[in-house]
Amino acid sequence: MKAIVKSLAGEGATLQDVPTLTTAPFGHVLIKVQSVAICGTDFHVYSWDAWAAGRVKPPVIMGHEFSGTIVEVGEGVTSLKVGDFVSGESHKVCGHCLQCRTGQGHVCRNTQIFGVDTDGCFREFFAVPEASVIKNDPRIPPHIACLQDPLGNAVHAAMQGELAGRSVAVLGCGPIGLFGVAVCRALGAGVVFASDTSRYRLELAQKVGADHLFQIPGDDLEAAVLDTTDGQGVDVVLEMSGAPPAIQQAMRLARPGGRVSLMGIPSRPVELRISEDIIFKGLTLHGVVGRRLYETWTTMQSLLANNRINVEPILTHHLPFADFEQGMDLMRSGQCGKVVLDVSTAD
Amino acid sequence: MKAIVKSLAGEGATLQDVPTLTTAPFGHVLIKVQSVAICGTDFHVYSWDAWAAGRVKPPVIMGHEFSGTIVEVGEGVTSLKVGDFVSGESHKVCGHCLQCRTGQGHVCRNTQIFGVDTDGCFREFFAVPEASVIKNDPRIPPHIACLQDPLGNAVHAAMQGELAGRSVAVLGCGPIGLFGVAVCRALGAGVVFASDTSRYRLELAQKVGADHLFQIPGDDLEAAVLDTTDGQGVDVVLEMSGAPPAIQQAMRLARPGGRVSLMGIPSRPVELRISEDIIFKGLTLHGVVGRRLYETWTTMQSLLANNRINVEPILTHHLPFADFEQGMDLMRSGQCGKVVLDVSTAD
Amino acid sequence: MKAIVKSLAGEGATLQDVPTLTTAPFGHVLIKVQSVAICGTDFHVYSWDAWAAGRVKPPVIMGHEFSGTIVEVGEGVTSLKVGDFVSGESHKVCGHCLQCRTGQGHVCRNTQIFGVDTDGCFREFFAVPEASVIKNDPRIPPHIACLQDPLGNAVHAAMQGELAGRSVAVLGCGPIGLFGVAVCRALGAGVVFASDTSRYRLELAQKVGADHLFQIPGDDLEAAVLDTTDGQGVDVVLEMSGAPPAIQQAMRLARPGGRVSLMGIPSRPVELRISEDIIFKGLTLHGVVGRRLYETWTTMQSLLANNRINVEPILTHHLPFADFEQGMDLMRSGQCGKVVLDVSTAD
Amino acid sequence: MKAIVKSLAGEGATLQDVPTLTTAPFGHVLIKVQSVAICGTDFHVYSWDAWAAGRVKPPVIMGHEFSGTIVEVGEGVTSLKVGDFVSGESHKVCGHCLQCRTGQGHVCRNTQIFGVDTDGCFREFFAVPEASVIKNDPRIPPHIACLQDPLGNAVHAAMQGELAGRSVAVLGCGPIGLFGVAVCRALGAGVVFASDTSRYRLELAQKVGADHLFQIPGDDLEAAVLDTTDGQGVDVVLEMSGAPPAIQQAMRLARPGGRVSLMGIPSRPVELRISEDIIFKGLTLHGVVGRRLYETWTTMQSLLANNRINVEPILTHHLPFADFEQGMDLMRSGQCGKVVLDVSTAD
Repeated sequence: MKAIVKSLAGEGATLQDVPTLTTAPFGHVLIKVQSVAICGTDFHVYSWDAWAAGRVKPPVIMGHEFSGTIVEVGEGVTSLKVGDFVSGESHKVCGHCLQCRTGQGHVCRNTQIFGVDTDGCFREFFAVPEASVIKNDPRIPPHIACLQDPLGNAVHAAMQGELAGRSVAVLGCGPIGLFGVAVCRALGAGVVFASDTSRYRLELAQKVGADHLFQIPGDDLEAAVLDTTDGQGVDVVLEMSGAPPAIQQAMRLARPGGRVSLMGIPSRPVELRISEDIIFKGLTLHGVVGRRLYETWTTMQSLLANNRINVEPILTHHLPFADFEQGMDLMRSGQCGKVVLDVSTAD
Repeated sequence: MKAIVKSLAGEGATLQDVPTLTTAPFGHVLIKVQSVAICGTDFHVYSWDAWAAGRVKPPVIMGHEFSGTIVEVGEGVTSLKVGDFVSGESHKVCGHCLQCRTGQGHVCRNTQIFGVDTDGCFREFFAVPEASVIKNDPRIPPHIACLQDPLGNAVHAAMQGELAGRSVAVLGCGPIGLFGVAVCRALGAGVVFASDTSRYRLELAQKVGADHLFQIPGDDLEAAVLDTTDGQGVDVVLEMSGAPPAIQQAMRLARPGGRVSLMGIPSRPVELRISEDIIFKGLTLHGVVGRRLYETWTTMQSLLANNRINVEPILTHHLPFADFEQGMDLMRSGQCGKVVLDVSTAD
Repeated sequence: MKAIVKSLAGEGATLQDVPTLTTAPFGHVLIKVQSVAICGTDFHVYSWDAWAAGRVKPPVIMGHEFSGTIVEVGEGVTSLKVGDFVSGESHKVCGHCLQCRTGQGHVCRNTQIFGVDTDGCFREFFAVPEASVIKNDPRIPPHIACLQDPLGNAVHAAMQGELAGRSVAVLGCGPIGLFGVAVCRALGAGVVFASDTSRYRLELAQKVGADHLFQIPGDDLEAAVLDTTDGQGVDVVLEMSGAPPAIQQAMRLARPGGRVSLMGIPSRPVELRISEDIIFKGLTLHGVVGRRLYETWTTMQSLLANNRINVEPILTHHLPFADFEQGMDLMRSGQCGKVVLDVSTAD
Repeated sequence: MKAIVKSLAGEGATLQDVPTLTTAPFGHVLIKVQSVAICGTDFHVYSWDAWAAGRVKPPVIMGHEFSGTIVEVGEGVTSLKVGDFVSGESHKVCGHCLQCRTGQGHVCRNTQIFGVDTDGCFREFFAVPEASVIKNDPRIPPHIACLQDPLGNAVHAAMQGELAGRSVAVLGCGPIGLFGVAVCRALGAGVVFASDTSRYRLELAQKVGADHLFQIPGDDLEAAVLDTTDGQGVDVVLEMSGAPPAIQQAMRLARPGGRVSLMGIPSRPVELRISEDIIFKGLTLHGVVGRRLYETWTTMQSLLANNRINVEPILTHHLPFADFEQGMDLMRSGQCGKVVLDVSTAD
């Protein structure tokens, strides 16, 4: 079968033939993959940045965002059957640590990430443990179903606290920031501010429901927020950029008693005015990683299946499987939302 | 000035001239009333049922759902000014009891209800304590702003727990049930089931977003819920009817681990299967009354001002002030959603 | 090996020799059982009441409260090893249903109970799935470690909401009610009221921290609660008796805005004054069953290991394994707290 | 009457005669003060540091921690009467801003602090608005009742999340840190670690229940925490020191999925490893200021009145009113817990 493989330490990846899986191991299901999406993490692995060089051990089959259909069910599997339309969680968790046992599997101490620490889903057939699979509502189309892992990041970040009627600032409109805007609108947020350096991405933000757009640098987000909120600041900040100045700004934008979800990953320590911006304001900060297994997925399934959330505009490119390098080029350019590859074209 | 007065013990009420208020007492504001809405409670007072006969001491000016403009500000008032567009909470709470001091003012032990225990808002000028007033976002039109008290009931009931992606059954589609449907849709609920005895009201429920309608008796809501939810039952039940069979049904409709908000008021005790329907299912039940002062109002303001909720179809009748008896007739017939009276027509 | 077996439909059970387990199946561990405790459920099975007759299919090895040591680890087990001192959850859950996947495994739709639906722990060697086992802190003695399943019921019921400084009424001082009193005191509850029909059990309640004791019928719990709480009622009621009058009383005892945990299982429907006692008071009711897997266990382990909770007085009888019928007699008499059997005496 | 007055910009304060209050203004009560305690804020004002010089406008009567008895009730006051034994909240809040109206009065945007922004309680008679007064349970002695404002800080910080069975590290054992240790033990925390630079204060921490003491610099708290918690880190960190290295350490000490309450106020920005220490660990941080009006007070009253918390060892010095300068010297030396002044000795 065809697979996209990170075969060597260094930039790039190759589409190659690998042995076809034909059986599902004990406790696993074998999935015929239909659609996959390129994660920012995949681009880090592809471009072989410092993080990737320190963590990934080639060769590894890339990818962890997918949808597909079960073609074989291994012994010991009780909740899935052949023909089920499924996706899966990118974090393969241990199931037994304190975190896994107490509803915090998203910070499992023994997590492995598909496509990073173990072979991933950029291939025609993929075997996954039952515990990593989620059965999709059949109303969700495959090219949308493969977006749930990053959409789940946004759902998880946004749902750290109440959203109903809350004013929100979303800092950073990469795919997860864009999903964040869509989630806010789906769950009844009030006014939504969005900022990014890219006009292209701000326009996507507008398509999924941002009310006010701010191109950075230049536009004065803070002044606009104070003006719109009677000097209070916003109830909620979703920091999705990872840029240190945006993280600092997040603390200033939140109103006294507000909350900030930190999901964008800065590459260096960030200096914060703890007293003025956090303590005296009584802020709550959430460091957010992954998604809740499986509260987030359950919520997300319902939003998608019942057509309660508008994510279609974020899927900007839908390419044949063989054109993955074009997808990586789009990721590099920033002129994209999510890029989906159609694996059924792999043959 | 004109006022609608419950002047005698017995059915009916009269539109009469009462002395015009010209000053705002200490800590109060004087409001020129613009729009008022008829509450189910007002109809109980008007028709003089057993509850009203036991509680109301005529003469009393009726009404507690309103919007208007401040025309005078009493001494000691710091947060409001002449010209502010406002509405108010129908429960006049003491501010000092355990409940008021710990975020549960909606169950204040010393509550008085305007139009029931003390003179209400069905008049041209109304003086209200600062603590009972909420400043409206100017984007909310007056005929909608006067609906916030009952809309707040629905927001309060629905927001007892998470709604995002949750399946919901709303039992009873009187005005508060209809608002409940609208709130569920505004806050990202998944599939929404609605039941009522009236086809007229079910059609209103559909207009504000109910997915599946069930006319009682006849339609089999329970079978449909089980069928749609893979045998689980719904995540959330909003019991808005007060009918004992519906209260019993609510417990059966909720899935194991689900929740039920009880807001409809039954006139007699109800037998519940505590073991099978509540304990073994690990249900959470909320008795719900009033609205949170002022978390509910704050959320609701934002939903209305930012156009995040669709309540217009629920306002079915907008009458001149003098036609209040026609409004009461509509209430009796059940062929209405909310009935609003235009007080500016009173002169 | 020796085992206590429900061998026939009808009253009683027999201590008999059964084939000794020598290997741990895939995903299981083999445990040398040290201490077991008799649950009320075991007594129902032993005395063969209507519930037992309708559910249990003899022969079945009884029991589900235990502590012991792992003597063999099956293939596929990653988090446990030979020599670990362990106990286990009595509910064997599926791990894959909606409830299991979203933190509500205590209401798993496919639960089996050890000693009821499948062979239990009243024997010398017991094989249990890894997912059902909890590793005990070695500071917890074996005769206490075997009490965690029912202690967990109490922890789960009491922790449905805040306890710190809260006034609590515990209705019913059987073992779980007694544990409830101990949990309340361990977690900083304020005044604790306890009621029961048995003076013997009320004295145990006093030993674990109840402040005020009420023998039913006769003592006027409601008057005392109102008198002590300035007419408010208690913040929290833990209904552990299952007696219909106590369930009705629970609603009256709770203050406006309070909460009631319903854990005692009534044998028939109960009539509740929904309007007066639940809605107008804004009560929250929790139907409570089982324990959270494994939040409850994690909390409980720490309380026991750090000596933060006083449960020793509740263990009133510690018998040799062969004397299990004496234990059942004690259960019948009500003149006991928990009865523990020492399995190491089985040979 | 006698009062301790900050009469001039510069170090020091004076005990002087000021006009005796004889009436309670509208909405106020007049209190005969019995006991007062010296807050760290009072010491800042007394020693006239940069913060005090920038905020305080002499002359001002100092102090905001007190207990006393109502001797006169002003017009409009409904919930208090002559003879009531009371204390009060140091933050005089507006009651009308978004925060005050939605349960976040502790971050009221219009807060004034008694003894800082307006005359305080270090005097024989003190007039306070009804809304700032809390009625004390008569079982609480006056010298303990005057400690509730800082005890409330600790209750508020510790109760940002669950404590039952949780492992906790308290960084900084000044009075609020010491109260934090006492609160943790009162509410059933598991193992409690405490660190400070002062052996004197660590010994106080031990008296109120800390299990492990760490003198900084020197003792290796992080190694001990990892060793005791199986490499996880603690569930909860209460950062009470305000020292930048302790704030950084707090993030490292918390386990993945844990929480950190930040209450100690650093005098400069602090660099945090947002990615490694907050996001990847999924931490929750709370900036904590003040106390909840009046949830915190209600909880605290019950803990004190029912003797559920051990705070007596923290009150290390009880001085005559005239010896306030000795109290300030003790504050400077750090060789004290709380210092209480007996106002009844003022004549």
